[in-house]
Formats: sequence, structure tokens, C-alpha cells
Amino acid sequence: MGFEASIRETTGQPVVIGKLDPPAASPRPPHILFYGHYDVQPADPLQLWDSPPFSPQIRRGKDGKDRIFARGASDDKGQLMTFLEASRAWLSQVGSLPFRLTIMLEGDEEGDSTHIDRFLALNAREFKADAAFICDTELWMDETPAIITRLRGCIDDEVIVTGPKIDLHSGYYGGPAVNPIKVLSRILADMHDSRGRVTIPGFYDGVKPPSAERRREWSKLRFSAKKYLGDVGLSQPAGETAFTPLEQMWARPTAEFNGIFGGYRGAGSKTVLPAEATAKLTFRLVEGQNPRKIHKAFRDFVKARLPKDCKARFSGGHGDSTGISIAADTPWVIAARKALEDEWGRPAALIGCGASIPVVESFKTHLGIDSLLVGFARDADSVHSPNEKYDVECYHKGIRSWARIISEFA
Amino acid sequence: MGFEASIRETTGQPVVIGKLDPPAASPRPPHILFYGHYDVQPADPLQLWDSPPFSPQIRRGKDGKDRIFARGASDDKGQLMTFLEASRAWLSQVGSLPFRLTIMLEGDEEGDSTHIDRFLALNAREFKADAAFICDTELWMDETPAIITRLRGCIDDEVIVTGPKIDLHSGYYGGPAVNPIKVLSRILADMHDSRGRVTIPGFYDGVKPPSAERRREWSKLRFSAKKYLGDVGLSQPAGETAFTPLEQMWARPTAEFNGIFGGYRGAGSKTVLPAEATAKLTFRLVEGQNPRKIHKAFRDFVKARLPKDCKARFSGGHGDSTGISIAADTPWVIAARKALEDEWGRPAALIGCGASIPVVESFKTHLGIDSLLVGFARDADSVHSPNEKYDVECYHKGIRSWARIISEFA
Repeated sequence: MGFEASIRETTGQPVVIGKLDPPAASPRPPHILFYGHYDVQPADPLQLWDSPPFSPQIRRGKDGKDRIFARGASDDKGQLMTFLEASRAWLSQVGSLPFRLTIMLEGDEEGDSTHIDRFLALNAREFKADAAFICDTELWMDETPAIITRLRGCIDDEVIVTGPKIDLHSGYYGGPAVNPIKVLSRILADMHDSRGRVTIPGFYDGVKPPSAERRREWSKLRFSAKKYLGDVGLSQPAGETAFTPLEQMWARPTAEFNGIFGGYRGAGSKTVLPAEATAKLTFRLVEGQNPRKIHKAFRDFVKARLPKDCKARFSGGHGDSTGISIAADTPWVIAARKALEDEWGRPAALIGCGASIPVVESFKTHLGIDSLLVGFARDADSVHSPNEKYDVECYHKGIRSWARIISEFA
Repeated sequence: MGFEASIRETTGQPVVIGKLDPPAASPRPPHILFYGHYDVQPADPLQLWDSPPFSPQIRRGKDGKDRIFARGASDDKGQLMTFLEASRAWLSQVGSLPFRLTIMLEGDEEGDSTHIDRFLALNAREFKADAAFICDTELWMDETPAIITRLRGCIDDEVIVTGPKIDLHSGYYGGPAVNPIKVLSRILADMHDSRGRVTIPGFYDGVKPPSAERRREWSKLRFSAKKYLGDVGLSQPAGETAFTPLEQMWARPTAEFNGIFGGYRGAGSKTVLPAEATAKLTFRLVEGQNPRKIHKAFRDFVKARLPKDCKARFSGGHGDSTGISIAADTPWVIAARKALEDEWGRPAALIGCGASIPVVESFKTHLGIDSLLVGFARDADSVHSPNEKYDVECYHKGIRSWARIISEFA
């Protein structure tokens, strides 16, 4: 296709780079960095696959629709190919793209995101672009194109509350001895108020509520909290009562308890008073929150609640990421909205994502650029599971969507 | 010694029985049941013993005092022998004891107390006595004879709080999904108020505070809470603020958290919202509390705090025992107080014990009798540990103590 291609070493798997400059022009066209990943999740358990995971098959379903079955069909090989095929088509018809293009395909997306982060930090000048395009996300409710404009960050912490220097017998010490499980339970219970708000002082510093416009748009997304929660056996939103479930997921930070343990965990009963108890926590963060400050505020919150005979040890904070909000008024988002609506016949949903996509933060931190997050996967694609698939319809309409985006630029 | 001896089968280890009736007399003398146990704790770890655990040695310490070293030297073979030797001495000098005597030595005290309980239930008529004598407890602070007049009971329960039907990703569900660790923490935190009282409704029903006389006696015991807690790394009593540490241990019920677990417990961090969380609890009970009612009250307390999307499963309650208070004005206690003061040169301490001695409850339940709990062990005896010992001084003074008690009867 005319790219200048190379393989570049990282501290993890190598990165595949392709560079294509359009003919010299004035003004110089923008530089777009397209990101995807060639690594996949393990294919286990193999016996649950209907066809070999690394021998792709197109099979027609009872609904008459064709689907590509293979590990990576959706995540992320099928998706990244939509952009490459759109570029190929454009080049074959027009001769050159309306932007400088760098393709970056990494091999550690499913593993350790610190490798690509380090690579970008070391090569920031080379990969400095005007925007990153990423095709690794889903349609909204299967039929509506979507652009992600918010991602939550995440920090983790662990606290070990220690009390007596050894486990004690509850017959002899039950009463006067402090119990670390009790102390820890009380600290965790204190961490939310009756309206679901996190009570750590300063936790919400810098957090802006979503704009009225964004809230209005989200309210029109026909998101069914009932179905979303019902699928996992729940019936009631349990977060901040002042926000809708979508807002809770996309626009609000949380303090979550991921694990707790202390004392006796075997069968039956043991009359032990434990010497310590541990909790593992993650905090989902939104734009405006400072991970370091949240760590400190949490640890101060714990220490302020320790009785004299208890101490707390902390660990964690190794993979902190910040919450990110992506401007919706950039040329790329404006172009993408128009192109996606033209292709799919309905307006693109500007949605949030409650999870983190670490490379988006790396692009922001090291290259200073926003990412355009557009993808064509569907909930039923069994990403990370046996029989991963990608709908041929999504593949074709995905290619056409990117071609329309390129066209908007042109 | 003239006993009618037999070995009796139980559902566990056999019980050794010896019966000795004095010559017919009118009025018929009282019937005393002396209880001890021949089983011992495992001797492991063997390499920490200075002499073979089952080849008893008497060794003189640097303080010039002789000590018997062997597994069971104190718990309970040395102790039970004090009574047998006192009986032998009395019989050899006087010819007959001033009571009908049944010796009962069991083999499951360190293991499963349900065997002796069943044996007593099945043979209640045969072993109906006026009182049980037990020699399996300690002196008070090494030099003061002691009679135990209170024992706490114990019930256990386990609660599993379930929420979503699977573990969830905190990026996608953090916010709207209920978190069972949070729910459980709040329930546990709710279970005590700021004064250390258990908040479960009805928990203290039937609990009487120790009498003014008992409190006065206990306050004179020179018990050092500072040392008792300091030995295990603590400095402050953590129980009910309205009671002293001794009262907290001997006369007050507790709700204790023995174990807690849920969610991720491996190294590092995992952004999981767990489907369930579990706590293991024991409640130390005092006389007047009904174990069944406490179980029900606890479970009601939990259920009342469950949000709509959480359920609770309970297990436990297999080895419930009630708190016991032993009257101090019985002939046996009065005789023992006089005899012990005569032998040890200081008044016997009427003390409590925060733990349970299940056979005392079995005697109460099946035979309807109180137990006289007198023992001569010391803190330093390394009961259950390597180099278990029994001081020859305790052995001799223990024999003489029982002889004096027999004399008081006579």
C-alpha cells in the first residue's frame, strides 16, 4: 500500500509501524496516528470453540447473516482492518490520503500497558500527531454508531489493618482486645454516605458534573438500566442517588471494594480474634481528579479512623490512570459524527466508558493529543471468550464508515 | 484403691470410670463426680522439646524448684492425679471417703466434646451426682488458689451476603452495582455502638451485671489489664466502656468477627466487584442469654440491613453452649474456699473464665449439677506447647488442697 513499514522493539512485544505521507502540500495536512493491537486474549478453553480459533471461518447464521469466527476477529484484528481497508480503497481511488498517516499496531494491549506507554514516552517526538484514531470499541446497542468521549481512570490501593501482635483466643480476649476486622469494617462502612456519595474529604475536588447537553443526550440513548442490571441479577442502581446509572458509570468516580480478608476462612468455626485484616480497593476516577491526591486522601481517611492499638499498612498505586474527557468539538469528532450518521442512518451516540483504555491516557500524556474512539463491535461478539466473531456487516459498514470519515477530511 | 473400675464405650474415645461407695450410712452421704481427661494435645513440634514428651522427667530449675516435664504433665494428667492422690492418702489414713465418689476420665476433651456430652445424656441416671469436681484450671496469678464461678458460652454463625450473580468488572459496573463487601462491612460496623455495646436488638435480654460483691472482689484481684493486653501488643481495652477489662471477659457477652473474606485476595490488584462476601462470627454468651434467640436476633439484624438486591445465607450454630454461673454458696464451694485458704495462706479468688468448658454445661444440662472448678496449673506451664510442665510444688500443694477439701466434708 506504499507505507514505509518497520518493526520497533519495546520492553514488551514489538510494535508494527507504518508511515505514509501524502504529496507535499501547503498548508501541511494534519498528522493522524491510527492505533490498533495485534495481540489477542488466550483462546482457552479450546474445547468450547466450534471452529479452530486461529483458522478464521465465515459462517452464515440462521438469520442469513455472515459472521467471521476467529480469535481476534473482533478484538482487535477485524476492527483495525476496517481502517486499513478504508485507507486501501481511498488510495486506490484517489491516490493519496488527506492526512499524514502513521499506523501503530502494538502487541501488549491485552497484557501490560506499561510497554506501549514507555515506547510512547521514549519516542514522543517521532509520533507527535494531531489526533489518534482508535478502532477497538463497540457500537451503541448493536445498531447505533458511537464515539467515546469519556473514559474513567483507575487507581488501586490495599490496606492492612493490624491490631494484636498474634491471633487471639476469643474466650480469653473477646471483649477487651481490639478486632482488626471490626476496625476495617467500620472504615469501609464509613466510606459512603446514605446517598451513595464517597465521604473521603476532597474526593470530589475537581469533578465537574456532565454538562446539561451531555446529560440530555445520554437521557435519549434508550439505555435500559433495568436490562443492564437485570443481566447480572440486579434490579436497583446502587450508586449515587443524585445520578442516573449511566451517569454513575460514565461521569462519576467511585470507591470500590474488590477484596477483603482476615482471620479464619476455613470450614466451620474458629474462635480466633485475628491479628490483621486486609481490604483491596480500586477507585474509578473522572477528569479533574488527581490520583496522587486521592491516594493520600484515602490513606488519611483510614488513619483518622484507627484506634490507638491499630496500625495500617498500605500498598498499591502501581497502575494509576486518570479520568479522561475528550472534546467533542474537534475537526475529527465533527467529521466522524457526520460520516457515521451518513453510513448508519442515525446520529452517532456520544457515549462514555466506565473503564480505562490506558493507551488513550498515554497519547494524552506523552503526545498531548486526544483520541477519536470509534468501533463497530457488538455485545454478542464474545470478545475474550470462545467463538469470538465479527459480523461481516460490521466489517463492511466499518470500512465504509472510515472511508466516509476520510472523505469528510478531504 | 478399692474402686470398681470399668472402661465404657462412647461415640469417641472410651471413658474410664471408677466408683467407690463408703460404708452404708444414714443420712446417705453426698455423691461427688470427679472429672478429668486422659487425652492430650499432639506433642508436635517434637524438635522443640528438651526431653521426650512421653518420658516424664523431673528437672530442677535455676530457682531450685522441681518441675515435671511431659505432654499432659499439667493438662490434665498431673492435675487429675492431685485428686486421686488425695483420695488415696485419705483412704489409707481414714479408711473411707466422706462421700460416694465416681471418677470419670474421658479421652476427647482436647477434641470433640460432643462425645462426652452424648455419653452423659445417655447415662444421666447412672451418673447423677450432687456435684462435679474438676481439676483442669489454673491458679490465679501463680500463687493464689482460684475457684471458677463463671464461664462464658459460645455460639458461632456464618453469613454469606450475595449480590450480583457473577463477579463484575468495576469499570462497567462500578457505581450502579451493589457491592456485597460494602453491604457486609456496613452490617458488621453497625453491630457495635460507640460505647462498645452490641446493638443487636434483644442481645442483652436476661444478662445480669455481676453483683456488687463480685465486682468488688474482682477489683481486688490485682489484675493488670495493662500487662494482660501488653503481652499481646495492645494498650487499651476495646470492649464495653462501662465495664472493666475483667468484667468484659468474665461477665459480658460479645459479638466477635473471627473471619471475613470476599472478592480478590491474590497479589496486586483486580478490578472486580465480587458476587458475595462472607463473615464468620462467634458470640460469647453469659448466663441468662438464650443461644437460639441470639442466633435469630443476629440473623434478623442482618436481614433488616440487606438492600433489595442482596440476600444472606447462614450456617453455623453447631456447637452452641450457654453461659454458666456457678453458685458460690454451695457446701462444696464453701468447703473449697476454706480448704484452699488454709493450704495456700491466702483467700481463694472467685474468678470467671471468658472461655467455655463444654463438659460443665453437659453436667448442668444432663445431670442438673454444678461443677467445682479448682486447679493448680500456672501460666508458664506451656499447656498445649512444647516442654509442657507441672510444678512439683503445685502437685504437692494440689494434693494437700484436695485432702483439705475432703477433710472439710468429713
